[in-house]
Amino acid sequence: MKGSMKRRNFLKGALASSAAVAAASSFPAPAISQGRMEWKMVTSWPRGLGGLHTGAERFAQRIGEMTDGRLTIKVFAGGELVPALQCFDAVAGGTAEIGHDAPYYHLSKSPAMAFYSTVPFGLTATEMAAWMHFGGGQQLFEKLMARFGLKAYHGGNTGHQLAGWFRKEIKSVDDLKGLKFRMPGQGGLAMQKLGVNVVNLPGGEVFQALQSGALDGTEWVGPYNDLALGFYKVAPFYYYPGFHEPGTALQVMFNKAKLEALPKDLQAILKYCCHAENDTMLAEFNARSGPALRELVTKHQVKLRKVPNEVVIAFGNASGEVLQEVIDKGDDITKEVARSFLAFRQEQINYNRITDEAYTIARRLRFKYPTKA
Amino acid sequence: MKGSMKRRNFLKGALASSAAVAAASSFPAPAISQGRMEWKMVTSWPRGLGGLHTGAERFAQRIGEMTDGRLTIKVFAGGELVPALQCFDAVAGGTAEIGHDAPYYHLSKSPAMAFYSTVPFGLTATEMAAWMHFGGGQQLFEKLMARFGLKAYHGGNTGHQLAGWFRKEIKSVDDLKGLKFRMPGQGGLAMQKLGVNVVNLPGGEVFQALQSGALDGTEWVGPYNDLALGFYKVAPFYYYPGFHEPGTALQVMFNKAKLEALPKDLQAILKYCCHAENDTMLAEFNARSGPALRELVTKHQVKLRKVPNEVVIAFGNASGEVLQEVIDKGDDITKEVARSFLAFRQEQINYNRITDEAYTIARRLRFKYPTKA
Repeated sequence: MKGSMKRRNFLKGALASSAAVAAASSFPAPAISQGRMEWKMVTSWPRGLGGLHTGAERFAQRIGEMTDGRLTIKVFAGGELVPALQCFDAVAGGTAEIGHDAPYYHLSKSPAMAFYSTVPFGLTATEMAAWMHFGGGQQLFEKLMARFGLKAYHGGNTGHQLAGWFRKEIKSVDDLKGLKFRMPGQGGLAMQKLGVNVVNLPGGEVFQALQSGALDGTEWVGPYNDLALGFYKVAPFYYYPGFHEPGTALQVMFNKAKLEALPKDLQAILKYCCHAENDTMLAEFNARSGPALRELVTKHQVKLRKVPNEVVIAFGNASGEVLQEVIDKGDDITKEVARSFLAFRQEQINYNRITDEAYTIARRLRFKYPTKA
Repeated sequence: MKGSMKRRNFLKGALASSAAVAAASSFPAPAISQGRMEWKMVTSWPRGLGGLHTGAERFAQRIGEMTDGRLTIKVFAGGELVPALQCFDAVAGGTAEIGHDAPYYHLSKSPAMAFYSTVPFGLTATEMAAWMHFGGGQQLFEKLMARFGLKAYHGGNTGHQLAGWFRKEIKSVDDLKGLKFRMPGQGGLAMQKLGVNVVNLPGGEVFQALQSGALDGTEWVGPYNDLALGFYKVAPFYYYPGFHEPGTALQVMFNKAKLEALPKDLQAILKYCCHAENDTMLAEFNARSGPALRELVTKHQVKLRKVPNEVVIAFGNASGEVLQEVIDKGDDITKEVARSFLAFRQEQINYNRITDEAYTIARRLRFKYPTKA
């Protein structure tokens, strides 16, 4: 969903900017009265966006509960206080104490940020958590973010994002050539290598572009978010799996100096609340996608199709080239992060193959099992 | 691992019981001095057991940090304060305020408890979290546990557990007949239906039984815990996937009255710390299993084998029968929980098939991708 979310929020940001400035000026600076503080959390999310903005709101709510109001967090949707993609600078500069967005929005700071959201053919959501907690990912993240006066933890994950919506069936790599398709980031660069005409329209314009023929297809997130945008009405083929975003992690960024000036218990509450949100947001995307998928297929007659292996392999080779270019051009920390990430990825592929993957395949074999009680 | 853990801890509990009683009497009752409390957390885990006991210790450590010592949790290994399998009664009765164990240790309270750990061909770890948070699982759990004066949240998951270790290759259902194999719980009952001679020895006796021929094989957990017990030395065939424990959830139980007497902020800290541990423990099992699997295969020449589809289907039919018997014999809440669980399971199978499962298969196709940086 990356780029489209960016641009859509940029637009929303621009539209809302005068109101936002007026609103912002009426918010008090972080105030301490009777030991009570209010912190600002800027986000990249449209207000109310299911999974992402609701996750940020839940985080703030939990902090309020855990601190008995000693620390209250006011959540700003993208564009309300700062433009949606300027959370990084806003938190580094102290305009807000906290930011909630996707690390890959900030590749201009370091290409290493990509590994902390997702890269094509990278880690699943649970593999990402394993790398962060026990594979060295978090230590390197702190090293990277400290350069900008920030400290961050993962605080949410969308899970796997699907390849997206097509108006026509894709049976071979040749069928991709010349298609006008929306896919941002490294995935889009890989698609370009396969002859796709990548058009990164803002999310809010995608539906109309599909209708008018300006686009032949688009990726977005997964059943939960995709159903809401109604792409099935104009592009009935829904392709799986995605390769571009196998488990997109979101971050909670803190202004490091302000975080470290807090009492230790509040620092701990903020940290572990990020871990809790990592559990809960993924649960929300997974739980809500099941019924959304059923509705797409049974009510809206969406044609669910598997990306042919020939096309997956072509995506794989192209993604490998793109990633190698990112690493080659990257700064020192990008190489260090990539080294850790790629070694961990290889061991997880071997382990996942014999556990979750083999299990979920086995579970779908035909045998008699209760379906209700 | 279920039953063996039970029995092993029962043994440890018995051995340690006189010492435990002596020790227990020297612990003060939950004390409030200058607003500081010490709570006891009993667990079923052997001290230091990787993943499980370390998870319980981490939970306690985090509570100490988040409360600035207002609430300190003292962690007891299985048998130290009460026998390993009596956490439920100990917490319900107020001997300890908190317990950390596996819900399926307490099937005698209600068969519904099985669904809150794992059942054969049930939910994966992330599907379980989705059911608990957004599929109605947690509400029903609270209804169930309130009957015993308890409130519980999930607080950790082992992830997928493998089918286990065999001395000889298994090529058909016939090869299982008459085998002496260790597998507790519903999985063991299903194996019995296939003619397996299920022998549920305590974990500590399994290695020797394999050596002497008293056992032909055993399941345990996964690479991280299995490597430590050295089964590869006597049973070189390691079978995947497991079907009996696809993602075993652990619970943090609270004495409901004592929990609800706490200030609201401490209640919230305890709750969200459970969610955080759900993220972190799974990460630990996943991260540490990758290198352990590599060591098993490359250093110890373990023969990794896939359970043949014919055998999976036979396991499936037998597991379906066992589960149907559990539901038929179950109390009202067992039927209510099963109804919710089985409906959720069906939607997750459909969703997982096109996301994580399809993705991890696609990721293993042959294409050129960086393996280091």
